[in-house]
Amino acid sequence: MGAGQLARMTVEAASPLGIRVHVLAEHAGDSAARVAASTTLGAGTLARGLAPFAQRCDVVTFDHELVSVVDVRQLEAAGVRFWPSADTVAVAQNKWEQRTRFQQLGLPIPAFAAADSVTDVDRFAERHAWPVILKAVLGGYDGRGVWIARDHDEAEQTLSSAGQRGMRVFVEQFLPIERECAGLVCRRPRGDTVAYPIVDTVQKDGICHELAVPSSLPRQLTVQAQHTGTLIAEHLGVVGILAVEFFVANGQLWVNEIAARPHNSGHFSIEGCVTSQFENHLRAILDWPLGSTELVAPYVTTVNILGSADSADPRVNLPLALSLPQVKVHLYVKKPRPGRKLGHVTVLGDDRPQTRVVAWQAVHLLTGGSAEDSTEVGGVA
Amino acid sequence: MGAGQLARMTVEAASPLGIRVHVLAEHAGDSAARVAASTTLGAGTLARGLAPFAQRCDVVTFDHELVSVVDVRQLEAAGVRFWPSADTVAVAQNKWEQRTRFQQLGLPIPAFAAADSVTDVDRFAERHAWPVILKAVLGGYDGRGVWIARDHDEAEQTLSSAGQRGMRVFVEQFLPIERECAGLVCRRPRGDTVAYPIVDTVQKDGICHELAVPSSLPRQLTVQAQHTGTLIAEHLGVVGILAVEFFVANGQLWVNEIAARPHNSGHFSIEGCVTSQFENHLRAILDWPLGSTELVAPYVTTVNILGSADSADPRVNLPLALSLPQVKVHLYVKKPRPGRKLGHVTVLGDDRPQTRVVAWQAVHLLTGGSAEDSTEVGGVA
Repeated sequence: MGAGQLARMTVEAASPLGIRVHVLAEHAGDSAARVAASTTLGAGTLARGLAPFAQRCDVVTFDHELVSVVDVRQLEAAGVRFWPSADTVAVAQNKWEQRTRFQQLGLPIPAFAAADSVTDVDRFAERHAWPVILKAVLGGYDGRGVWIARDHDEAEQTLSSAGQRGMRVFVEQFLPIERECAGLVCRRPRGDTVAYPIVDTVQKDGICHELAVPSSLPRQLTVQAQHTGTLIAEHLGVVGILAVEFFVANGQLWVNEIAARPHNSGHFSIEGCVTSQFENHLRAILDWPLGSTELVAPYVTTVNILGSADSADPRVNLPLALSLPQVKVHLYVKKPRPGRKLGHVTVLGDDRPQTRVVAWQAVHLLTGGSAEDSTEVGGVA
Repeated sequence: MGAGQLARMTVEAASPLGIRVHVLAEHAGDSAARVAASTTLGAGTLARGLAPFAQRCDVVTFDHELVSVVDVRQLEAAGVRFWPSADTVAVAQNKWEQRTRFQQLGLPIPAFAAADSVTDVDRFAERHAWPVILKAVLGGYDGRGVWIARDHDEAEQTLSSAGQRGMRVFVEQFLPIERECAGLVCRRPRGDTVAYPIVDTVQKDGICHELAVPSSLPRQLTVQAQHTGTLIAEHLGVVGILAVEFFVANGQLWVNEIAARPHNSGHFSIEGCVTSQFENHLRAILDWPLGSTELVAPYVTTVNILGSADSADPRVNLPLALSLPQVKVHLYVKKPRPGRKLGHVTVLGDDRPQTRVVAWQAVHLLTGGSAEDSTEVGGVA
C-alpha cells in the first residue's frame, strides 16, 4: 500500500528474490507505479479499493502510515495478512500513543502531557519551563505537526490554528538537541530480530539531509539505541522494519518517534550493508530468515536529494553526477517540489570525510550547483 | 530485446537511475517480463514486431544474440539507435568472424580453418594432430555447437549431422585447457572504457558453475586479459558490456569467444563491485559516464543455480538458503529444466575458501540437497 520511493525501492529489492509485488498507488505516475509490473489504482481505505487489492496478496505491507486502521483491522478479521499489523500501525500513526507506550517501557523520553487547552500548556510550562514543544497526535512527519511555543501567546495561537484544522495536540518538554540519530531493527513474526548499525542523521528544518554510518556517538549510546529499538519492536509486535529516531540532549539518548516500515534513515543500507532494509523488510513480512546487517565498508555516507524552489530535476543532471565513479545514485522520479525528497546518493569508503565530500558533490551536481561550491554548501568543510 | 535473466537484472539496475525500460519478450511469463513495468510481446525480427517496439525507445539493447542482424541494420538506417550496433552483433553471433578478427588483431587464438568437408578437417589434423574441435559458425552457447572429433570418422559424423541441420562448421586446434577465465569491459560511444577484475570461471559440460574473483591467475595474465578485452571492445566499436572468455592452456592465455552484452561471468559484479555490469551497460548505451568497477570486498564467489532432472524449483527452498545470513540470492523465476540457469548466489568475504563453502551450501539448499553434503558435492573441500 503506497507507491512512493519506499515502495519503489521495495520493488527493486523484491525482484532478485523472485517475489511478485503488487502496488496500490494513488496515481499511475507515482514513483513505485512507474517500475512495478502490477499496479492497482486506489488507496488505503475500503472506500478506495483496499479490499480487492489486499485479497490478491499473500501479505500486505505499507510505505506510509496514512491508512485507515479501522479498515485494515476489518480485513485482518476477514483473514487478510497485514504486516505490520493494524495494532502496530495504530501506534506508529499516533505520537501520543507512542509516548505512553515508551513511558510504560521505562524508555528515556521527554516529559509530556495532554494539551487540550492552553491552560494545560501553561501548567506544563510551569513545571518544565518555556519554551515547550507542541505536537500533533496524528499525521505529522518531516517536521510537519511539530511547533515550538516560547510563551503563553504562541501556545494559544498554535492550539487555536491546530484546533481549526481538527488536529489534537499534546505538549512536550523542550530538549536542547545536540544531534540526532536513528536505529533500524527488523523483526519477523516468530520473533527473530536483527539490528542495523546506528546512523547519525543530520536534520535541517525537520528534514533529514545526510546519513553517516557508523554513528560517531560513544559506543555506550549506540548499544543503548540498538537495544531500545529491539525492545520497542518486541513490545509492539512489529513485523518488518522498525525505525526509531533518537535525540541526543544533555549527553544522553532520548527516544523521539518511530516508523514501522522502511525509513529514510535506512537508505545507506542498500549499498552499505550485506542486506538492505528493503530486502529484510520483505523477508520479515514473508517470515523468512533475516539477512546480515553488517556494513560492507568502514564508512557510508548517504545524502538526500531535496527539491528546492530553483533546483533542477535531478534526472537532467544525472550524467554529471555519474562522472564521480564511486557514487551510487537513486532517483525516485518524482515531480520536483521544494523540500521534497527526489532521490539520494550513497558513497562507501575507507575515509569518512572523503565519502562526505564526494556524496555532497554529487548532490550539488544533481540539483544544479557546481561541484566546486559543494563543500561549502554542504557544510562538509 | 529479450526477456531472460540478463534483461531481468538490467531492469533491476535501471530503476535506481530512473531509467524506463521497455521489454520485448517472447512470452508474458519470461523472466524479465515478470518484473518490467512495460512489456511488448514479440521477437528480434521485423516480422515479429521489432519495428514498432524499437521506435518507442531512445536506445535498444539485447540480452541475447538471436536477432536478425539484417533487420536491425534496416532499422538503424531508419534512425533507430541500437547499442551494441548491428555490426557488433554480427561479430558476436559468428564464431568464425570472431576468429578472423582476433587473428587480424594478433591475439592469442588456437589455429583454425574452414571445415566445409571432412577433407578440410583431415588436412587440418595432419598439421595440428587429432583430436580437433569442430564449432558451429552461428548460434552456439553454453557448450552447444561445440564438438570434439578424435578421428576422421567422428569428424565425418559431426559434419554430416551439422550439415543436416543446416549448420556451417569450422575446425579448431584442440587445447589442453587447464582453466578458464573471463574479462568484462564496458565501453561508451565516445570511447571511454572500464575493465572489470578478471574472474575465474569453473565450467562443467560447457556450462559455467562458479565464478571466483579476483582471479588466482598470475598478475601478468590478468593484466593481459584486461588489455585484450579493451582492445577487442575498441576494435569492434562495442558499446555496452563486452565479455571475453579465455582459456588457459600451456601456461598461456587464449581468447575463446565473446559476447557483446551483460554476461553470466559478470554476475559477481552486482554485489561485488561498486558498479554492476548491468548498471554500466545501461550507462554505456545512454552515453553516460561509466562507474567504478572496483571490488568492494577482498573475495567474491558466485555460484550458478542450475536445473537438474531431480532438482526442486529454487523458490521452494529459498527460505532455507536465506538462513545463511551472508548469502545474496538471485532467482530468475524460470521453469526448472536440466542444465538451465535458474538463478545464482553471491557471497563476499575476507576468506576465499569460506565464501565458496557458504555459496555452495546455499546452492545445494536451493536445489534440494542438504547443507551437510554441500562441501562434497560442490567439490569445495
